[in-house]
Amino acid sequence: MTRDEARALDAADPIAAVRDRFALPEGVIYLDGNSLGALPAATVAAAGDLVARQWGERLIRSWNEGWIDAPQRIGAKIAPLIGAAADEVIACDSTSANIFKLLVAALRVDPKRRTVLSEAGNFPTDLHIAEGAVACVPGARLEVVPRDKLLEALGPDTAVLLLTHVHYKTAERFDMPAVSRAAREAGALMMWDLSHSAGAVAIDLDDAGADLAVGCGYKYLNGGPGAPAFLYVARALQDRLASPLSGWMGHAEPFAFADAYAPAPGMKRWLTGTPPMLAMAALEAGLDVWSTVDRPAVWRKSAALWSILAEAGGQAGLDCVTPADPAGRGSHISFRHPEAHAIVQALIDRGVIGDFRDPDMVRLGLTPLYLSHEDVWRAGEALKAVIADRSYRQPQFAVRQAVT
Amino acid sequence: MTRDEARALDAADPIAAVRDRFALPEGVIYLDGNSLGALPAATVAAAGDLVARQWGERLIRSWNEGWIDAPQRIGAKIAPLIGAAADEVIACDSTSANIFKLLVAALRVDPKRRTVLSEAGNFPTDLHIAEGAVACVPGARLEVVPRDKLLEALGPDTAVLLLTHVHYKTAERFDMPAVSRAAREAGALMMWDLSHSAGAVAIDLDDAGADLAVGCGYKYLNGGPGAPAFLYVARALQDRLASPLSGWMGHAEPFAFADAYAPAPGMKRWLTGTPPMLAMAALEAGLDVWSTVDRPAVWRKSAALWSILAEAGGQAGLDCVTPADPAGRGSHISFRHPEAHAIVQALIDRGVIGDFRDPDMVRLGLTPLYLSHEDVWRAGEALKAVIADRSYRQPQFAVRQAVT
Repeated sequence: MTRDEARALDAADPIAAVRDRFALPEGVIYLDGNSLGALPAATVAAAGDLVARQWGERLIRSWNEGWIDAPQRIGAKIAPLIGAAADEVIACDSTSANIFKLLVAALRVDPKRRTVLSEAGNFPTDLHIAEGAVACVPGARLEVVPRDKLLEALGPDTAVLLLTHVHYKTAERFDMPAVSRAAREAGALMMWDLSHSAGAVAIDLDDAGADLAVGCGYKYLNGGPGAPAFLYVARALQDRLASPLSGWMGHAEPFAFADAYAPAPGMKRWLTGTPPMLAMAALEAGLDVWSTVDRPAVWRKSAALWSILAEAGGQAGLDCVTPADPAGRGSHISFRHPEAHAIVQALIDRGVIGDFRDPDMVRLGLTPLYLSHEDVWRAGEALKAVIADRSYRQPQFAVRQAVT
Repeated sequence: MTRDEARALDAADPIAAVRDRFALPEGVIYLDGNSLGALPAATVAAAGDLVARQWGERLIRSWNEGWIDAPQRIGAKIAPLIGAAADEVIACDSTSANIFKLLVAALRVDPKRRTVLSEAGNFPTDLHIAEGAVACVPGARLEVVPRDKLLEALGPDTAVLLLTHVHYKTAERFDMPAVSRAAREAGALMMWDLSHSAGAVAIDLDDAGADLAVGCGYKYLNGGPGAPAFLYVARALQDRLASPLSGWMGHAEPFAFADAYAPAPGMKRWLTGTPPMLAMAALEAGLDVWSTVDRPAVWRKSAALWSILAEAGGQAGLDCVTPADPAGRGSHISFRHPEAHAIVQALIDRGVIGDFRDPDMVRLGLTPLYLSHEDVWRAGEALKAVIADRSYRQPQFAVRQAVT
């Protein structure tokens, strides 16, 4: 790949103009949108309007002027990105809290099934929360097995199979229809964590027959740091599951102020406390970018961007751990290297922001909405240069930071 | 009270100038700051900086530039308002989620104590969440008794006494030291919901020997709609309790990405998911207003404002359900009336925003930071006029809204 070839791809890119809808800093190539998505330009005004007009001027009246329905309205905007119906998704709480709610609820469906099955090396909060969830249901337990042993571990005791669709380190992607089918055939519920795949790859939860899902608002959905997460329950299950976090916003009649809890119909029962409206407004602005974008063009561009970095990494002699088959991966690429942390620091020094994942992973996110082919080509050149001249061995790059 | 007397009180008010630090709409007297606090003027810039610079320009780097410590830093700013040490408070999640976390943890301290005791008519989410929490601990149950039977209901099975310090409808305030002592003497943990009292009245959790507390960021702390809540654990208990919502942000080493959960030391273990930074920034700006305010002057002014409305309500022949003793109440006043909803609508029509609480309560919040004595005097005049001329009986005020 040459710079001219990258530019030719940009010239032919049907979604190239979407980049103009983001406020990107000068002098930076941002390959960390899989950790924190970039700022949509319209979010500045949306957040400003939320603060100054909706809160400052309208005050409490805004709850009747669009706030109270925001979790469902925003859920409906997430739905087309994950192959769900508008009334199967709601935006609320954190991914962690949502995993807890759904796991405890899933464990209560069939008292004969007591096991949450998940993958060793899954994103930590999934496993940590699963520990917490099984401790809340008598007899429940968490079984964590290697990726290649998951399907054979499904059995008559499996209540729910909890998997992250795209792996946060390697970008490996599960075959959602096939795995969901295997869970169903074993009599278990299938729950997907879409944090690294929503907005990154094509997803069709309804078609796959998935039962439950959660995902993150602040990665490929560009909802802002710590944005509200989302939660999906297949329509057929919605009346059978209820939230253990039975807060007033999920009550059938929250403003009747009754002592006894009664879950709302539909997805509203998954709400806990009062929706965080500043965060909700930013998430909604992030989703509004997606509303006019040709989604298949995004998935195709992701694959093209990936190939550019894979070629550069290969030329640099790096060990790529992400699958070469586009259908088998998400929208980031990871290279294993014993000096991964220093390499990431040296790249940042050259204006290429990626991130490091303990202990030895250089992880580079590819976000088609706001990265051009030329951006990624330049990042690839930087990667080759850092490896070739060993600039990552400079002492200042050896200092570890708490978060990258 | 005459207008001139109210103006004289304003002239002598040591905190009168704090009002200028809020962006208040023209033509409105806002008596609903106990439901949603008003907008501090500095919050507009703080939220704008969070969005445009911290997120937009610094992107992922901001996690190392002040974000990751925000829950503890903001907790430390709440601490002086509730009589806690800086390392006993953390800002996170919703009040509802925080009640859940602390109740489940408290029920695990002593397996011989299985009862959560609370008050009939407590704020609904406290009771709803308590229902959800006891369902997560084998043998646990929720006992709800009338206010005057609470202390006698304490017994050898009581694990935790969960009370709201200031009642959301009546503004009745519990004697925190006396009730906390009674719980302790019964061997139970004492947990306070400070949602209607933090920033409204003097609170000294440490002095009272309280064990646990939660509270709301969007009422008297002026943190914005759906602001993060807070959570307090007395230092002596911090190593003995752990969160059932065992998310990665509460892990001892979140960026080591270990499969097994290990709670962080201190208050950090109460974090669940990634902190919602837009909401956190607004809460922090709201708390910064408090940092330079003479708090005892706030509590004194609250009592003075209350007396103005109590006098007006008395002149209008209204039935005040809020205690006359300042030490026995919070910072709102409630009147019972069979046409309460229409009265609130008629007041809004005159530019006085209060709220209605089912079935028969007119609730008016008194927020000394941004209400003058004259504001409240004018609100009292409006209340008297609405009752005297029966304007609340106009047909348009009979329409119920979902939220007020």
